Amino acid sequence: MVDVVIVGSVALDSVETPHGSVERALGGAATYASIAASYFARPGVVGVVGGDFPKKHITALCKRGVDLEGLEIVADAKTFFWRGRYEANLNDRTTLDTQLNVFQTFSPKLPASYCDRPFLLLGNIHPDLQLKVLDQVDRPRLVVCDTMNLWIEKALGTLRRLLRRIDVLCVNDSEARQLSGCASVPAAAEWLLAAGPTRIIIKRGEHGCSLFSQRGFFSIPAYPVQRPADPTGAGDTFAGGFLGYLASCGRLDEPSIHQALVVGAAMASFCVEGFSVGSLLKLKQSDVAARCRELHRATQFEAIHFAKWL
Amino acid sequence: MVDVVIVGSVALDSVETPHGSVERALGGAATYASIAASYFARPGVVGVVGGDFPKKHITALCKRGVDLEGLEIVADAKTFFWRGRYEANLNDRTTLDTQLNVFQTFSPKLPASYCDRPFLLLGNIHPDLQLKVLDQVDRPRLVVCDTMNLWIEKALGTLRRLLRRIDVLCVNDSEARQLSGCASVPAAAEWLLAAGPTRIIIKRGEHGCSLFSQRGFFSIPAYPVQRPADPTGAGDTFAGGFLGYLASCGRLDEPSIHQALVVGAAMASFCVEGFSVGSLLKLKQSDVAARCRELHRATQFEAIHFAKWL
Repeated sequence: MVDVVIVGSVALDSVETPHGSVERALGGAATYASIAASYFARPGVVGVVGGDFPKKHITALCKRGVDLEGLEIVADAKTFFWRGRYEANLNDRTTLDTQLNVFQTFSPKLPASYCDRPFLLLGNIHPDLQLKVLDQVDRPRLVVCDTMNLWIEKALGTLRRLLRRIDVLCVNDSEARQLSGCASVPAAAEWLLAAGPTRIIIKRGEHGCSLFSQRGFFSIPAYPVQRPADPTGAGDTFAGGFLGYLASCGRLDEPSIHQALVVGAAMASFCVEGFSVGSLLKLKQSDVAARCRELHRATQFEAIHFAKWL
Repeated sequence: MVDVVIVGSVALDSVETPHGSVERALGGAATYASIAASYFARPGVVGVVGGDFPKKHITALCKRGVDLEGLEIVADAKTFFWRGRYEANLNDRTTLDTQLNVFQTFSPKLPASYCDRPFLLLGNIHPDLQLKVLDQVDRPRLVVCDTMNLWIEKALGTLRRLLRRIDVLCVNDSEARQLSGCASVPAAAEWLLAAGPTRIIIKRGEHGCSLFSQRGFFSIPAYPVQRPADPTGAGDTFAGGFLGYLASCGRLDEPSIHQALVVGAAMASFCVEGFSVGSLLKLKQSDVAARCRELHRATQFEAIHFAKWL
């Protein structure tokens, strides 16, 4: 039975980076998140594609154990398409083309069996749609929500209503600043905590991520990838790994949440090593475990006892 | 007796940020680093100021136990002056004026008693001058070196000679990329390790810092400052705290190096809370210890044992 419901885009992406390019490759927030979650739990996708969506992508997702009962296929329409180019640093990117296609009229409808599932990821779509999903579910144990600058600019009121109904907001540092109007990330996190969620996850790209809650902050670095190829989907992969791990371990205590961040970071590091979902589809448990161990080794230190003080 | 020799600028800074401004305030890499180190060790500054350098700054440094035998005072010349403005995010800054003044003809001369001291910090000055310092010292236990984009562009050959003679290079992420020509920080660190230093410290500003060595990488977050006022000198403060702590604990093993990074990060967090050295001059041991404890709490997690794998 599905334990992590993931709502978001399933897309075809054309991506160009200094390290190569792909044309109409499998992409979308729900795609990355569900593949990442699939290593630990049973994810189900709620989204929409067009008649042009290649069958091989359906097969790939099914093979990973992703449930697609909630994936609508509109035969006479086209799949959401995004074309973008990244600069040498892989941080700055330019959107060259966005074709909403089937997404223009998309309204998420959860299969009946998804409505009482314990974990819900609201991927980055219009906050109106994210609210519609919340109206269909029966008190999940944990609701994680992503968003983006577009909705902060165009639908701030809705977004603020949404914030009151989610448990974890998962955004990058610039989105946190923009949404809160605060100049520093810690101040932004404080503002966002007051707006509803009990936890704020700040994604910092190659620098790692931080968790803010009433208990203070917690941080982990990104796993150091020598030759990142394409950062597309890294944040969604992180969120999928995070929720998938929590679903598998069954606990929501602080130590488990911290471990889930580490798992998310490890999964994201695999994502950026290849284009599209190439590096994500065939992971071995030993690969993921090795990166989690390495992140543990890279962060643990002995408490400091100051001997003298001048 | 001095145990940390710090070579670098002692300056007057006019700084404007969205949170306020100061005119001709005490600044300079050696100033920040020596004040930070003074809480743990006995730092000595090698630098130069002009006759216009206010006596109160000399007094402030002396009061913190900073040895000034190596601080040259050129009565008929002016102190190095920098004017800059920071944007709202406090990351982007514009240099509005730089007057080298006494620094134009500066050639560092170490007092005889400094030449056999165990710890040396080569603050960001022309790499020719940094080499001249190395010619005067007798095998320090640890040489840490900073640099900047200006020297990477103007004196790359000298910089590469310098890299072969230092133990730790301490630069920010964009400098590491520029110096190595590598697009990712991990690749840049690998390149830099092959160029000489046994350790590379990458400063990531508000995101923290990472250490790269043959033993792999290690990372700590920045202490989350709610209302940063002025980031000037944070990197120098970090380096001074790092070296000061190492001098006080007397060990250079990996656990001590990691703790020293934490101390550096804690000191840097105080630096950014005020303008100039305002927040750095009057720290209590309990303040610093509390931030180090908080950084410990914010990074320690239990090793992950994967229960199931789908």
